[in-house]
Amino acid sequence: MNHASGTQRQALASNGMRLNELSARTIVDAIRGRRLTAISVMEACLERIAIREPEVKAWSFLDADAARQRARLADEYQASGLPLGPLHGLPVGVKDVFDTSNMPSEYGSQSLRGRRPTEDADAVSLLHRAGAVVVGKTSTSEFGMYHPSPTHNPLDLSRSPGVSSAGSAAAVVDRMVPLALGTQHTASTTLPASFCGAFAFKPSFGFASMQGSNVLVPRMAHIGLLARSLDDLTLFAGAFDHSLADVEVLRHPPRLGLVRGPGWDSVSPDARQALDRLVAGLPVAVVNVDLPSEFDMALEVVLGLLNAHLANRFGALPEQTFRSFCPPLQEGIVAGRSLSAARYLELEAMADRLSALAAALLCDHDALLTLSAPGEATRLEEGPGSGVLSMPWSLCGLPTVSLPLLRGMNDMPIGVQLVGRHGGDRELLGVAAWLTDVVTLDGKSSHEQI
Amino acid sequence: MNHASGTQRQALASNGMRLNELSARTIVDAIRGRRLTAISVMEACLERIAIREPEVKAWSFLDADAARQRARLADEYQASGLPLGPLHGLPVGVKDVFDTSNMPSEYGSQSLRGRRPTEDADAVSLLHRAGAVVVGKTSTSEFGMYHPSPTHNPLDLSRSPGVSSAGSAAAVVDRMVPLALGTQHTASTTLPASFCGAFAFKPSFGFASMQGSNVLVPRMAHIGLLARSLDDLTLFAGAFDHSLADVEVLRHPPRLGLVRGPGWDSVSPDARQALDRLVAGLPVAVVNVDLPSEFDMALEVVLGLLNAHLANRFGALPEQTFRSFCPPLQEGIVAGRSLSAARYLELEAMADRLSALAAALLCDHDALLTLSAPGEATRLEEGPGSGVLSMPWSLCGLPTVSLPLLRGMNDMPIGVQLVGRHGGDRELLGVAAWLTDVVTLDGKSSHEQI
Repeated sequence: MNHASGTQRQALASNGMRLNELSARTIVDAIRGRRLTAISVMEACLERIAIREPEVKAWSFLDADAARQRARLADEYQASGLPLGPLHGLPVGVKDVFDTSNMPSEYGSQSLRGRRPTEDADAVSLLHRAGAVVVGKTSTSEFGMYHPSPTHNPLDLSRSPGVSSAGSAAAVVDRMVPLALGTQHTASTTLPASFCGAFAFKPSFGFASMQGSNVLVPRMAHIGLLARSLDDLTLFAGAFDHSLADVEVLRHPPRLGLVRGPGWDSVSPDARQALDRLVAGLPVAVVNVDLPSEFDMALEVVLGLLNAHLANRFGALPEQTFRSFCPPLQEGIVAGRSLSAARYLELEAMADRLSALAAALLCDHDALLTLSAPGEATRLEEGPGSGVLSMPWSLCGLPTVSLPLLRGMNDMPIGVQLVGRHGGDRELLGVAAWLTDVVTLDGKSSHEQI
Repeated sequence: MNHASGTQRQALASNGMRLNELSARTIVDAIRGRRLTAISVMEACLERIAIREPEVKAWSFLDADAARQRARLADEYQASGLPLGPLHGLPVGVKDVFDTSNMPSEYGSQSLRGRRPTEDADAVSLLHRAGAVVVGKTSTSEFGMYHPSPTHNPLDLSRSPGVSSAGSAAAVVDRMVPLALGTQHTASTTLPASFCGAFAFKPSFGFASMQGSNVLVPRMAHIGLLARSLDDLTLFAGAFDHSLADVEVLRHPPRLGLVRGPGWDSVSPDARQALDRLVAGLPVAVVNVDLPSEFDMALEVVLGLLNAHLANRFGALPEQTFRSFCPPLQEGIVAGRSLSAARYLELEAMADRLSALAAALLCDHDALLTLSAPGEATRLEEGPGSGVLSMPWSLCGLPTVSLPLLRGMNDMPIGVQLVGRHGGDRELLGVAAWLTDVVTLDGKSSHEQI
């Protein structure tokens, strides 16, 4: 494929893969080495989107011509010889809870229809500086609440893609874009990753500025990164923190603790069995970790904090706007209105206490291992799925990785969730690399060449 | 006084001052230079306390023999030749809102009668490490609320010493101890300093750990330092932050802004006139600063946050305990119970907004200048006095200094309050040094010799 000239010819890599199917790392390296152009990759992504979007509905906004124009500008910029960012020329999807000055930013809500902020969110600015080409805005549930988004699970259109970074997870897994940006307050990146079979990274609280995004509860507001491999995930994370770009597989066997936390009784038998088999096959002993009883309150704390902030933010809106909201948002606002200030402070103190307890647990373990979701993707008619297994870690601000290493009874993916120490993002990604290395991924090779 | 041997002889410095009247700096230097012993200074302080305490009531706990024993230990420690801390051998009073493992810690409340924590507060540990000899616990209002403490103003026993670090201010001004530790959430150091004529420093929020103290509202919890001169105040502050130990007078004339903030209509005519005369006599132009209108909400925000935290902390106590509380505490709890979580979050957001506005104001000024209190010390029957002039700066976490540079119509002191940039504690103390230098202090000389 060296020195290829026409877009048609560039649509296939030397191993027969279409350009939209290539890994982010391969694409970035090839663009940097002038073996690919940004516009050719963009065309392949847009072609895939054109074919699949009517069914998958991963995008809330996409202007193909504008996206092409941005890709061409990336190529022109490169031709100027100026230094390139780590994601130069790479198509990336951005969940529509981030402000974009050149695209609508509606947070999945009718009430913000046509909203065009004047400033990019900080995370979007960072992607631009890293050279990424933002393709469009991916679908989200309304204000990221537990409510279906328009998106369908690309692996089985009759199933939920999870919430609320559903569009980002679906776009990545369906090979519309190699990377997509999500957010997570409770489970919004981990759940869609588990349901759709994506690799996801929710960094430590404070990892990235959330300025210009839909922050529901400040202490729980995280970015979420979605990709099709762990290697791509680290490339993505490296754009935010350079030290994560070259994460290495942990050299020593990690000390892993197996957590069956709050909500474990909702885990399906096939998911339990799949996790048990994975753990039994590991080359290290995995210690069972009983969470302190205080963690039984975690979901109550999460929902209480969320509802209080919803009441604060949306409580004074006109009745008509309130009635236009999705039921979970209306219910959250109503529940939040009846919370007292004293109870709010109690919830904050509990959150602090749980964070301290979680930090203590992670002194003895390199990572905690649990499921990302209670089972395979729910059927659409069963609702968007439960984020119960992610909530405690979001509340405590700990970094998590979701790896699509398990399969359920319908051969749909189930994520393995690894939880790391606050600030130990690099170590956590190292454990994740170790785990993906020791678990055979259906015998597939990830080798790509351009 | 060199080589003096007997306690009797040591009680007088060479200029005729008693040892308890000497400045903290003089005492520390003399002890370090072996011209004084810690026990001789302690004896002089205890003698003064024995004479005055029945009327002033500055102490909630004092065990003279135990204090002597601690002073002797300081002398023994010095005899061992080990390195000395910056406050070595110096008698210091500690407001009884700090936990002490070797003295009762009752936070001024019947409900905590006889409480003996197992750990010292972090600030108390720091004083010990600095070599200070904690004399005893100084009186406070109940949990630091706006309610009289047992203390009387040492300058006029019929007047209020302010709240809630009243015992610390009275003990310092009455020459019972050269330094005393207070706290401030709203005005608890600045008001007693103004009423009693002490020099006070409330550092930037975050300056010192408040662990082990009576924290009412975390974002407003500050230590407060009280002394009889600015020089002693910087010695004291230097024990917490070494860079403050040798603050120098500002070399350039400071850019000062004169603030007549919320509550200015309660300022008495004599206080206004005294401030106007002081400003008119300064060798620099002082700019009038109109606070943004958002500051009109400052008091509401302060009280709302306080009440919410009171309801959270005390709301679930038995009725009998509740009824034992002073009226302002009961009223605060009741008011706090009716606050909603949404309103609490609104108050937090307003506090953030005010902090940002205050920070912007201080870009144009080296310090803001205002009064520490609305006038002279109130008569005891009029209540403990108003902290309204300090509240906005406590809320915004800005460092303040109170200097007893003014006199009211009854010749009682009125403090000048300087407000600095967050983190600009050293610069603020430099401005305070400049101001005290240019304002003649009744022609008194502060020269001391041992």
